[in-house]
Amino acid sequence: MQFPSPVAITWIADLINATVIGNKNGQATGINEIHRVENGDLVFVDHPKYYQKCIQSAASFIIINTDKVVVPDGKALLVVENPFEAYLAIVAHFRPFQPAFRSIAESAKIGEGSYIAPNVFIGHQVEIGKNCRIHPNVTILDHCIIGDDVIIQSGTVIGSDAFYYNGKKDREVWYKKMESCGRVIIEDQVEIGAGCTIDRGVSHDTRIGKGTKLDNMVHIGHDTIIGKNCLFAAQVGIAGATTIEDGVILWGQVGVSKTLTIGKNAIVLAQSGVGGDLEAGKVYFGSPAEDASTKKRELVWIKRIPEIWKKLNA
Amino acid sequence: MQFPSPVAITWIADLINATVIGNKNGQATGINEIHRVENGDLVFVDHPKYYQKCIQSAASFIIINTDKVVVPDGKALLVVENPFEAYLAIVAHFRPFQPAFRSIAESAKIGEGSYIAPNVFIGHQVEIGKNCRIHPNVTILDHCIIGDDVIIQSGTVIGSDAFYYNGKKDREVWYKKMESCGRVIIEDQVEIGAGCTIDRGVSHDTRIGKGTKLDNMVHIGHDTIIGKNCLFAAQVGIAGATTIEDGVILWGQVGVSKTLTIGKNAIVLAQSGVGGDLEAGKVYFGSPAEDASTKKRELVWIKRIPEIWKKLNA
Amino acid sequence: MQFPSPVAITWIADLINATVIGNKNGQATGINEIHRVENGDLVFVDHPKYYQKCIQSAASFIIINTDKVVVPDGKALLVVENPFEAYLAIVAHFRPFQPAFRSIAESAKIGEGSYIAPNVFIGHQVEIGKNCRIHPNVTILDHCIIGDDVIIQSGTVIGSDAFYYNGKKDREVWYKKMESCGRVIIEDQVEIGAGCTIDRGVSHDTRIGKGTKLDNMVHIGHDTIIGKNCLFAAQVGIAGATTIEDGVILWGQVGVSKTLTIGKNAIVLAQSGVGGDLEAGKVYFGSPAEDASTKKRELVWIKRIPEIWKKLNA
Repeated sequence: MQFPSPVAITWIADLINATVIGNKNGQATGINEIHRVENGDLVFVDHPKYYQKCIQSAASFIIINTDKVVVPDGKALLVVENPFEAYLAIVAHFRPFQPAFRSIAESAKIGEGSYIAPNVFIGHQVEIGKNCRIHPNVTILDHCIIGDDVIIQSGTVIGSDAFYYNGKKDREVWYKKMESCGRVIIEDQVEIGAGCTIDRGVSHDTRIGKGTKLDNMVHIGHDTIIGKNCLFAAQVGIAGATTIEDGVILWGQVGVSKTLTIGKNAIVLAQSGVGGDLEAGKVYFGSPAEDASTKKRELVWIKRIPEIWKKLNA
Repeated sequence: MQFPSPVAITWIADLINATVIGNKNGQATGINEIHRVENGDLVFVDHPKYYQKCIQSAASFIIINTDKVVVPDGKALLVVENPFEAYLAIVAHFRPFQPAFRSIAESAKIGEGSYIAPNVFIGHQVEIGKNCRIHPNVTILDHCIIGDDVIIQSGTVIGSDAFYYNGKKDREVWYKKMESCGRVIIEDQVEIGAGCTIDRGVSHDTRIGKGTKLDNMVHIGHDTIIGKNCLFAAQVGIAGATTIEDGVILWGQVGVSKTLTIGKNAIVLAQSGVGGDLEAGKVYFGSPAEDASTKKRELVWIKRIPEIWKKLNA
Repeated sequence: MQFPSPVAITWIADLINATVIGNKNGQATGINEIHRVENGDLVFVDHPKYYQKCIQSAASFIIINTDKVVVPDGKALLVVENPFEAYLAIVAHFRPFQPAFRSIAESAKIGEGSYIAPNVFIGHQVEIGKNCRIHPNVTILDHCIIGDDVIIQSGTVIGSDAFYYNGKKDREVWYKKMESCGRVIIEDQVEIGAGCTIDRGVSHDTRIGKGTKLDNMVHIGHDTIIGKNCLFAAQVGIAGATTIEDGVILWGQVGVSKTLTIGKNAIVLAQSGVGGDLEAGKVYFGSPAEDASTKKRELVWIKRIPEIWKKLNA
């Protein structure tokens, strides 16, 4: 989440009751998650395992629960007892929950020639471009940005909250909701089928690139970035903070895990499960997915086991 | 389904035109399905294969199409020609279909601090606790009970009818709808993602335990009981009358079959298919699901078949 | 799509700026897609690979981008530079996009005894039979036909656009939408669960046969024809232009590819992936799906590989 304008880091420290170590004169431009972080961003970390990754990342300001780490030049630590609560306080300040009282928010901007069907919900500060078709019973939640010539079919939800929790098993309720402050950005000429769900980013944005087409019941997780001219068939599911490059084709019911990358023009055959990075330009199959021709040869080899058994016993 | 108050079994017998054999003085407290049946309940059975299971169950009153079975002490048989039609008559009496004429039923109770977004449907006798967020285009159907601090995201349906039919292939239309009279009960601090569907019980309740979190497009079948502090990732589907104990994690696109049990804190990896009971505390993978490390070793063994072939031919 | 009445082929030629070769006196009764084409239909083809298939099909009139092919007796070619654009022009003329201004279109016909819940959208020229139950937040789009005694549960979308594109990689946006002009036809006593999506045909109709029952989150692709008395469990997905014959059972999360046929009374076990035709009356399992008992034996053989290895090394 970008702040509306840069904010003095000392002001943030006051808000979350933090001690600043290092550069006290900085201005934070936003808060972001570690996989998408940029210069000027705040990031938060509460587990020693990830301390160095966050400190060495592009982030300028690290909300952290220790003062026993070295601060790189120009950066600052914001030391608090509970970085997760500090994160929630920042989100609550800059993106407070705003109840809606009408189906189309007054603050929503809708471009010329765009058709908004009956029974559509459009939240606060949503922007929709020109010549879009938003079909009945679509939900577009606060702050989402839709380009020109976009089609969104019925029942689809844009901007649902991330499935992202702070988990601790020493309390009655193990999982605490990480409030989402990111957006969904949908570029021009994207088409989204019926019954899809596209989660907003936790603190970055979820983005769907120009000309990409999604079939029905496709799920896209938080902070995931999808390139241009991709095709995803029905019931594909993609977890959070993953990157899908341009021209990728995912066939029906493919599942893709979190924080990985699928390279340009890769094709993943139906029902495959992608658990790690995939190289560009190749065809994949299986759960876990691997090179499709390797996988298909493997299926042939399996059929030969009885023959092997017979031969061995002969 | 519990009746509003206990009902004389002779009154039920009149309603469904049954002959009572055994204890004629009993009071039925409700009607239930065989996997969830309790003392005082009516149950129905129309196939000899299941006669004894029903008669020996906790149920006190058995609607049945035979008088050639022995009635245990204190129990009663309600003998009818067609137990399925008798069941429908009881449901039609105690839970008649009530059309809705407005988006939020007058009889719905909504707790203090709960936010109901525009375009939400809330049915008759629904109860929603305090400080809930019910997002746009959510549907909560009749008689469902939602606890405190529950979040339900857009497009989700709570209380759809069970997928449960009486099947006979000697008629033009094979499958006859078993009307659902159960409820969905969602406990405190549960969060349900966008585009989920949670079926009501056929005659018991579907229940989601405290603090459990569901990602988008999760399907939960009728009469299924889910424990506390579970995490289900996107596109998980769970069939009817299954029991998932506390702390279970199901990753994306996992499918779980009906009337089975997954033990406490079990973890099922993405795209697995669970067809039988799973022991507590272990990690599972594959379709059919088995111990994850066994399954992963198996995948390695498969890759060795060409080497085995070569060795054998050498 | 059938035209409201037969149209002189010369009139069509004027509309799309085509040169007619062959029978100039014909009357086109509609436009259709190659898998479902009938006598009197227009069909279009723009790739030499499919020229002969289209010319030799049941179609009477072929919109094509060549004049170097032989026209069979009685048929006509409509030669244009870009058949895809010609198709779009015909659809735009006979099925122009009609914005909706109210939740239930004035032109919709709703039969006696049918219940339409609040928050339902019903489009132009929709016809709904008698004694149906259309639950809250259902979307039924233009021109769809629903029979008698049909139940459609909440969140379901009937008549979403086909996922069908004209793809060319030499332009900025690779995929151009093929506008759908087909309908969805749902026969009597069909029940459709919550959160399903049923795409209209591209130019034929999508059809669900009498007495078929769909669980929640089932996706049915464009131009797919489903027989009578089928049962599809939750999260099943079926691609376009496929044929499922009477009495077929698909268990949970089964995926079915496009333009294939599943024979009468076949049963496909959960999570299977159907990539080719399946014979009637058998049970199938696996991804890719094969005879279930063969597949299950295979799973047993795989478990013997370590034993084979040991034996080989002994």
